[in-house]
Parts: sequence; C-alpha cells; structure tokens
Amino acid sequence: MTAKNAFYAQSGGVTAVINASACGVIETARAHPEKIANVYAGRNGIIGALVEDLIDTSQESADDIAGLKHTPSGGFGSCRFKLKSLEDNKREYERLIEVFKAHDIGYFFYNGGGDSADTCYKVSQLSEKMGFPVQAIHVPKTVDNDLPITDNCPGFGSVAKYIAVSTREASFDVASMCATSTKVFVLEVMGRHAGWIAAAGGLAESHGIPVVILFPEVEFDQEKFLANVDAKVKEHGYCTIVVSEGCHWPDGKFLAEQGTRDSFGHAQLGGAAPVVANIIKDALGYKYHWAVADYLQRAARHIASKSDVDQAYAMGKAAVELALAGKNSVMPTVVRTSNKPYRWKIGEARLSRVANVEKMMPKSFITRDGFGITQKCRDYLAPLIAGEAYPEYRNGMPVYVQLKNTPVPRKLKRRFKVSR
Amino acid sequence: MTAKNAFYAQSGGVTAVINASACGVIETARAHPEKIANVYAGRNGIIGALVEDLIDTSQESADDIAGLKHTPSGGFGSCRFKLKSLEDNKREYERLIEVFKAHDIGYFFYNGGGDSADTCYKVSQLSEKMGFPVQAIHVPKTVDNDLPITDNCPGFGSVAKYIAVSTREASFDVASMCATSTKVFVLEVMGRHAGWIAAAGGLAESHGIPVVILFPEVEFDQEKFLANVDAKVKEHGYCTIVVSEGCHWPDGKFLAEQGTRDSFGHAQLGGAAPVVANIIKDALGYKYHWAVADYLQRAARHIASKSDVDQAYAMGKAAVELALAGKNSVMPTVVRTSNKPYRWKIGEARLSRVANVEKMMPKSFITRDGFGITQKCRDYLAPLIAGEAYPEYRNGMPVYVQLKNTPVPRKLKRRFKVSR
Repeated sequence: MTAKNAFYAQSGGVTAVINASACGVIETARAHPEKIANVYAGRNGIIGALVEDLIDTSQESADDIAGLKHTPSGGFGSCRFKLKSLEDNKREYERLIEVFKAHDIGYFFYNGGGDSADTCYKVSQLSEKMGFPVQAIHVPKTVDNDLPITDNCPGFGSVAKYIAVSTREASFDVASMCATSTKVFVLEVMGRHAGWIAAAGGLAESHGIPVVILFPEVEFDQEKFLANVDAKVKEHGYCTIVVSEGCHWPDGKFLAEQGTRDSFGHAQLGGAAPVVANIIKDALGYKYHWAVADYLQRAARHIASKSDVDQAYAMGKAAVELALAGKNSVMPTVVRTSNKPYRWKIGEARLSRVANVEKMMPKSFITRDGFGITQKCRDYLAPLIAGEAYPEYRNGMPVYVQLKNTPVPRKLKRRFKVSR
Repeated sequence: MTAKNAFYAQSGGVTAVINASACGVIETARAHPEKIANVYAGRNGIIGALVEDLIDTSQESADDIAGLKHTPSGGFGSCRFKLKSLEDNKREYERLIEVFKAHDIGYFFYNGGGDSADTCYKVSQLSEKMGFPVQAIHVPKTVDNDLPITDNCPGFGSVAKYIAVSTREASFDVASMCATSTKVFVLEVMGRHAGWIAAAGGLAESHGIPVVILFPEVEFDQEKFLANVDAKVKEHGYCTIVVSEGCHWPDGKFLAEQGTRDSFGHAQLGGAAPVVANIIKDALGYKYHWAVADYLQRAARHIASKSDVDQAYAMGKAAVELALAGKNSVMPTVVRTSNKPYRWKIGEARLSRVANVEKMMPKSFITRDGFGITQKCRDYLAPLIAGEAYPEYRNGMPVYVQLKNTPVPRKLKRRFKVSR
C-alpha cells in the first residue's frame, strides 16, 4: 500500500484548543510518512475542500505546528457551513469525493461538533458507494460540551475554566463593594441548548459565593428566580447570576431573542444579561451590573485548562492512530476511569451514534430548585478545569502562531460555487 | 515620639491590584513598629471610619497579608462614597477626626482615585485646623488611569493587559471564521471620560488585527465610523471595534445612556456595544457579535500585568515611607525615566495638585482620524502591560486570600449615621 494524503478541516465555532487537536493530527501524521504522505487542510473548513482551496501543511515548520498547541482560534480557518442531506444536495458530497480523488486523499479528519460528525459520517458512506473509499474520522470539538458518548468535549474545559475564574473574580469585586454599590452581577455565557458552560459558573460557589444559574434546560420562572435572588442578596449582601444565552421563557422564546438566524438555522442570540438585570431592577430595585462574555470566553487561550489542552491534542493524535489502524466512521472519545484522582483514557464511538445527538445536562447535575449545580456536577466539572497551560508571552502579549497557509496547486479544471 | 496607629481605606471601584497596595502599606508599616503601632483598615472604605467600624489588620497572618498581592477586589471592602464639600457636610469630616482621635490615628492612607485624593486633601487640612494633625497620604488607584502627574495609575496596567489580550484573542477567533460568519466584533470597555482602557485594545493592531477604537475623547461621527469599519472589513475580511462606555454623540449623550446615576452623580452606563453593533448591522448588514467586559476586566487578577502589581505594591510602600519621612498631603507617583528599556522611579505630588483633576488621553496619542492609537501611545502603553504575575492555583481555581477582618473594639459612645 502506498501512502495516501490526509485532509483535515476545522468546523463551526472555534475554541481555545481546536488548534491543539490540529497539532495532534499533523504531528502524528508526520510520524507515519509510510502511510500518510501529507496533511492538506481545508482553508475555512470544509468550504476549502469544496472549492479546492487546500493548504499544504508540509510547508509549516515543526515549531509552528507545535505552536498551534498554544494558539486559540482556527489556524486554517473554520466555517459555519452544514452540508445538506444527501438527497437535498448530493452535488456537494460528490464534489468532496472528486477533490479527494484528485489529491489522492485517503483520510478525512473533521474537527467539529454534532453537525460535523454528521457530515463526516455521510462522507464515509458516500465515498464507499462511489468506489473511492475514504477513512472518515471525526475529531470532537465543541465549547458546548454537547456531544454524546465522550465524557467531555475538547474546548469545553477551557471555557469552563474561564467562566469559573471570571465568575469568582467578578463576584469578589461585587462582594467588596456591595455595602454601598452594586448588589447583583449578571454574567451571560454561551450555550444554546445545553447548560454546561453556565454550570461552570457554579464552581465559584465552593469559594463562598452566592450564585444563581439560569440553564437552558430549565424554563425561566420569573417569580421563583426573583425570590431566590432576593434571598441571596439579603443573606450575603450580593448575588451573582450566570445566565445561559439559551435561557428561555415557558413558551420557548429566548430571553434574548433577536430574531436573526445563522446559516445552520440556529437563532442568533445575545443580550439575555441586560434582560435579566432589568427584571431584577424593576422588581427588587437592586443596583446591578452585567457582562456578556461572548467570544472572549471561547477564545481565552490565556486561561486555558491544561487537561483540556492535553485532551484536545490527544483526540487529534488518536484520530490519526484510529485511521492508521484501519478504522472508519468513528470518533475518538474521552473515557473517564476515575474521578479522584482524575484518570481518563481514549475510547472510540461509531459516528452513526454521534451524529446529530445533543447531550444535555443530566437532571442529577441540577439542584432541585433549578438554579444551581449538585455535588455530582461539581465532581464532574472539577477535573476538566484543572491545571494551567499558559502560552509564552513577549512584551506582555501572548505569542500565538500565524501559519503561512500555502495553497496546494489546484488539479481540477471545474470550479465549484458554494451557495447558501 | 510614641508610635501612632495608621488608618487605611480602599475607595471607589476596586481593581485587580488594589490589594497589592494594601499589602505594601501593611508590610511596610509592620517593619516600622517604632513609629506605626498598628494599621486599622476601614470596613467598606471610608464608611468604616465614619461609623467606627475599623478592622484590626494585626490579626491577619503575614502569609495572608502577603497573599493580598495576588488577590483581586478590595480585601477590606470599598465603597462609592464621596465626602461632600467641607461647607456642605462638615460633620462628616469632624466625625472622621473624632474617630481618628479616639483610636490614636496619626496616619491616614487613602487608596483611590481623584475623588479620594480630594477627601484625603481635605482631611489633612481640617485635622490641622482642629488641632489633631493627621498625616494624610493618598495611594493612587484607578483602572481609568486618569490621575494627573503620575505617569500611570496602579490598576490600569492590568485592565489594559486584559483588554489587549482579549481583543487579540477574540479577533483571532473572528478572523478564522469571517469567510462565512461574523465579520464585526464589538467589545465594550470601561472608561467614562478617559479613553485609556479603550486605547489598550489598539495594542492588538501590532499583531495584524484591524481595530477601530471609539474614545470618549472623540465625538461619535456615525458616517466616518461606518466608512472606516466598511473599509477594514473589505480589506481584512473582518474588523474589531473597541468602544468605550463613555463614547458619546456630538450632543454629549452617551451611546449607552440608561438614565440612572450612581452616588458620585456619574451616569451609570452599559450597553454601548449592542448600540454600535446595531448601527453597523443596519447600515452595512455585516453579521456581528458583541461583548461587554464590565467587571470582568477590572477583576481579572488571573491576567494581571507584572509591572502593574509591582507598582501597586510600590505605591503602598512609598506612601508609608513618605509618612515616616514626615510628609503630609501628598501622593506617591510613578515617574517614567526611560521607555526602552522601561525604567521608573517613585515620585511625589502635592494633593492640592491631584484632587479633582482628570487626565484625558493627549491628542498626540490618538490618530488623526480619531479611531486609533499612535506609535507614541503604543510606546506609552507597552511597558504597562509587560510581564505576568500569575496567582497560585489549586484544583484549577486561583488561590485568593479572604481575610479574617476582625473588628477593633469601639471607643466612642456616639453612633454616626451615614446618609445619602
């Protein structure tokens, strides 16, 4: 068997550690030149494959590839672009296979969330049918932590650490001034359907901080919420609220709904925090402040969790190893084998079981009143934010790698227009 | 001369490093028991002195006091409480002197911004007149960097580092996805009248990032702004906007004005970012995201600047040394003696020249178009964000000190009611 090329692409919202997975893929592939000739990356994700805009990663130095481990965002570009169903848009899948064929690609590593797992699964199926079998391996990534089977998703641990630390720091600030000033601090965090990120704010409670969490899994009950906040302010002098962007009213309407939708068809959110702050102001009259972390939380490589960085790298490495072992249509997973001390190993999941399944917070992780996290949840989250993995700094700023991203010469005459 | 006690209080919005100044005051005072018997801290700032709620810092261990160097927020509590003018409210000043007299306080260290410098100045004047002279020394602190004479204010460097790093990280995120997703990212930062914090976002430009800054010093010109943003998106594919909460229309109205005011009479702001984002969406149609850093920025001890921590400590230490040298009604300052390499020394300013003066960004620091920072500004800012001063971590969370804050037994019969 002669060596084949590999194709790697980043998909969906980027994270503080998705490049660590890219590093794992490329470094491991480079160690096996007898089976993997070269890794081509898609410029701006899967779109790069469709329009035949591939990046030749062999042009990047070993140092720059190693530097990806410390660099947030998507080093090759990512995109919000979901391939439609095979029936609706077979030409996109066929084009992918055409490009893979032209560039002798035998391995497809797709680094993303649930939507990408679905695409990855379909590519594997279709390539088989079309007589050009490609081994499709999904590399898990999502700050939302909502992929099934895997204990957790690379990307989440670092956001969780950012939110836990930020909640604690801002609460310390409020606590020291609440006698005469702000009594309620509202922090809005990401998470459309799953409240994992919001849950991380609850880790500040272990440090004596009164926290009320608004999960997307729990319908917003204004009366109960106000009573809870009021009780906490009366007891502690202040209260911190961590509200998920996906928090919604009983009728399903998001607190923050703006009415616009992204290309995946998801509602584009933002602004739950000021809504919550105003509800409190109107009903209880407390002075408030609010913050919306938005991209800061998922880009915050400066406060990444070491276990997250390690797992992101390990997932990239394992994906290549699965491919080398002849696997297809699978995703490496994190399997937790022990909580104290925290131990984990690499597992493997069939893509057919991963695609399009969203993992919500289990009921046992949310307190009975719906506003907090249980000890079980704490035990789950704690190891995921453990350890620091600081980037190097120069002149006060972190040193992040910017790749050369040299294009691979095109081989196909036909141009392909991506339309949405 | 027998040893006198010292009174220390934190004032106004707290910072990531105000406790480092407290550490400098207390450690230096402890080294001079022949002149300073004990340091009493005001619980919740100056209000603690008015209501005779003093904290006995001698009850805190040396380790805990040292830990203040790594702990954000106000360890003894702070307050937004400005003493009125002597004419309007002489009873408050007289009460201060009464409490100082009862507790044999010969030194008053007040750690705050311009308003506190004014209070400190008046206390020194009045105590003299009332025959109980207290040496009043102001310890500079403000994230806004708006105190005069001193080259910069402790507290600012760490916020500047947080904003510079966050702007860079979030911009990396946007850059990697702008082909198919968000093209404009808006980050709202603090700064009512002075644009120093917003200016720090401009440091990300040195890393190839297109940044548009909206300063409070420059009237918002919607047309010019939109043209600038559009040009940057067309050139780079995306654009990052750093908007100061104090950004205002030509008629003086804040973009974000909510109509409420705090107890200093300042308008309470928040929400310039969504306003700016919507202006862009309406006029240019670009997909946007926005973030409001709010308290996260000034509490972010996890990414504090080392030069800021060092200077905050040095200001506290210098304040005590000035007192020991018999000085009164002064403030230690940072004097920059060289830019490359960065060198600074301790200077001294008369409070009469500090009180109620706000230092805005000089014209030479803002680009001609009003949307960026000049090389001169870069040279000024760069050393202030230099160096990292990480706190220790345990189980993934920073180790911050919480003091015992033991009260000093009251000596006065008369209770005092603080009313506002």
